[in-house]
Amino acid sequence: MADVHRDRRDRLRARCSAQGIDAALVTRPVNVRWLTGSEAARALLVTRDAASAVLPEGAVPEEGVEPLPAAAGVDPAALLAATAGTATLGVEEHDLTVARHREVTAATGARLVDLGSAVERLREVKDEDEISYLRIAGEMGDQALGELLESILVGRSERHIALELERRMIDHGADGAAFPVRVGAGDHSGLPAHRSGDRRVEDGDFVTVALGGCYRGYRTSATRTFVVGLAPAEWQIELHRQVFEAQRAAREHLVAGATPDDAARAARRVLDAAGQLGEVDGEGVGLEIAEAPHLGLQELGKLDNRVPVTVAVGVHLPGRGGVRIEDTLVVRPSEDGGPELLTITTKELLAL
Amino acid sequence: MADVHRDRRDRLRARCSAQGIDAALVTRPVNVRWLTGSEAARALLVTRDAASAVLPEGAVPEEGVEPLPAAAGVDPAALLAATAGTATLGVEEHDLTVARHREVTAATGARLVDLGSAVERLREVKDEDEISYLRIAGEMGDQALGELLESILVGRSERHIALELERRMIDHGADGAAFPVRVGAGDHSGLPAHRSGDRRVEDGDFVTVALGGCYRGYRTSATRTFVVGLAPAEWQIELHRQVFEAQRAAREHLVAGATPDDAARAARRVLDAAGQLGEVDGEGVGLEIAEAPHLGLQELGKLDNRVPVTVAVGVHLPGRGGVRIEDTLVVRPSEDGGPELLTITTKELLAL
Repeated sequence: MADVHRDRRDRLRARCSAQGIDAALVTRPVNVRWLTGSEAARALLVTRDAASAVLPEGAVPEEGVEPLPAAAGVDPAALLAATAGTATLGVEEHDLTVARHREVTAATGARLVDLGSAVERLREVKDEDEISYLRIAGEMGDQALGELLESILVGRSERHIALELERRMIDHGADGAAFPVRVGAGDHSGLPAHRSGDRRVEDGDFVTVALGGCYRGYRTSATRTFVVGLAPAEWQIELHRQVFEAQRAAREHLVAGATPDDAARAARRVLDAAGQLGEVDGEGVGLEIAEAPHLGLQELGKLDNRVPVTVAVGVHLPGRGGVRIEDTLVVRPSEDGGPELLTITTKELLAL
Repeated sequence: MADVHRDRRDRLRARCSAQGIDAALVTRPVNVRWLTGSEAARALLVTRDAASAVLPEGAVPEEGVEPLPAAAGVDPAALLAATAGTATLGVEEHDLTVARHREVTAATGARLVDLGSAVERLREVKDEDEISYLRIAGEMGDQALGELLESILVGRSERHIALELERRMIDHGADGAAFPVRVGAGDHSGLPAHRSGDRRVEDGDFVTVALGGCYRGYRTSATRTFVVGLAPAEWQIELHRQVFEAQRAAREHLVAGATPDDAARAARRVLDAAGQLGEVDGEGVGLEIAEAPHLGLQELGKLDNRVPVTVAVGVHLPGRGGVRIEDTLVVRPSEDGGPELLTITTKELLAL
């Protein structure tokens, strides 16, 4: 793995070099982790010919990374020594606080310039190892959801169900949940950002569950909506079909070379034809549950091969509830069969 | 509650005024919450005669706080209007990123100066409502731990026990765990920052459990060490007694007017007399699990009435395990009976 991280640091070096930046001080935790493989490292300094990480006491850096003392953030003397000869030091101005910026300037004497989202952009296209971690994270969510569907939901609170799903993902080997599991019953179903609460599941409810596993730091997200009771109502069957078809239309457009706008527009056309308002959205996933690219109307650029994204369609009818369906997929070229689905659990309308 | 928050904002205004600061832009989430009561607000602007919060879509501010649009952080035009007449704007340089600092300067045209930890210092002494939330948070941890002690631990993994404790605290009404519950069995017992893992509890193990409830955002922490099996070994009884006495000595010094150094020194004396190395530490608690003041040797200043702190003593013997005992208490004057213990669970050496 040390080679993978060294290669990533080399790509950052190349980017810095092209901008006349001598060295980079990376502080955003998720970026530090991607460049070092270490969850514990608090900052990473990448110079032309070395890399040094600020580690907590007792932690050992991997091969090719020198340790820097962690005493109260970055030790000024150590940082000065490590940046010797650095005239221009790139920093992450979207992460570094004003107070730390001042400390680093004082400690190094270098001119600080903004790296911007250079590391985030490097992280956007994944390697096959990263995709395999996402595949495992997706499976963990699928397994937990599959087990839940075999149990009785009526009478249980949203929060109770959410906690059970988190525990089940951990039992299957997940680091944890990718985000707090969201369960919305009845009027709460179909909402994009509902927080699981005390509402108990009743017969006839739509229940929306959004969950994802986290494996080696990589996170997926899936959303499904079910009906509780023996037979769904006519309006429930119809609404579910509309959302399912809109989300499928979006999914089919996640091929290398398409724009995020294509996928959003395809889903919107299906909703419009059905006369439904609703939300169509999606985000890149990886070490974060929402990273670049953003899926939506007017989002141009091109989707690259090996970019994992979520794609969600939801319709909520106030007072009645709604349907939301979301998957995590990896963008692949259409000649390779198009997008790879990472969240396999059935999207059929199950009556539980 | 609106009065409580208005009063807190008035105390911040007085502090700003004394430093020649016209208005304050508070961005650190925990500080925003303390000044507004809102967990959702992303930033708070406190001017001489008004307060306005940046809220997510759909959120309603409490009485006395005006909403500011949330579009992509702070909307420049809205911020300019809200800060009209502000020559000097205080910001939290330990929280505000360099990128946001530049945006705020551009949007307001004001001179930005550092508020430092002004809000953190105001938060240090709690009111009786805050203490009552901490009392409830402590009880939730106690209840979860009490229930655990009635179950069989042998054969279960640290992580499994930790998850059960988190779920039980939530069942008792906690917002969640104050921090990820730490369970350390066998060689992992007695360590201050062990992360619960796959180690299974065995007969004869010391097991250290660190947990705390979170209620309305307020967090406590308690640590207990037990022995698994019918009879503890002689060394286990002896080590437990030493740590217990050292921690009790520290606790007794948490009276208004004493210094944090007094408490640390008292515990250290007991450990020294027993010939044990070990850790003595403690932190303020409230909306954060580690906030001001810091307990330790050479920490001077005076402990104020109504300051809640943790106090922990731990000894770890490599290869054998150890004992760690920690409580959350509120500093009170000695004429009122001294410190108030918020984490009541027995500190006796139970054999489970």
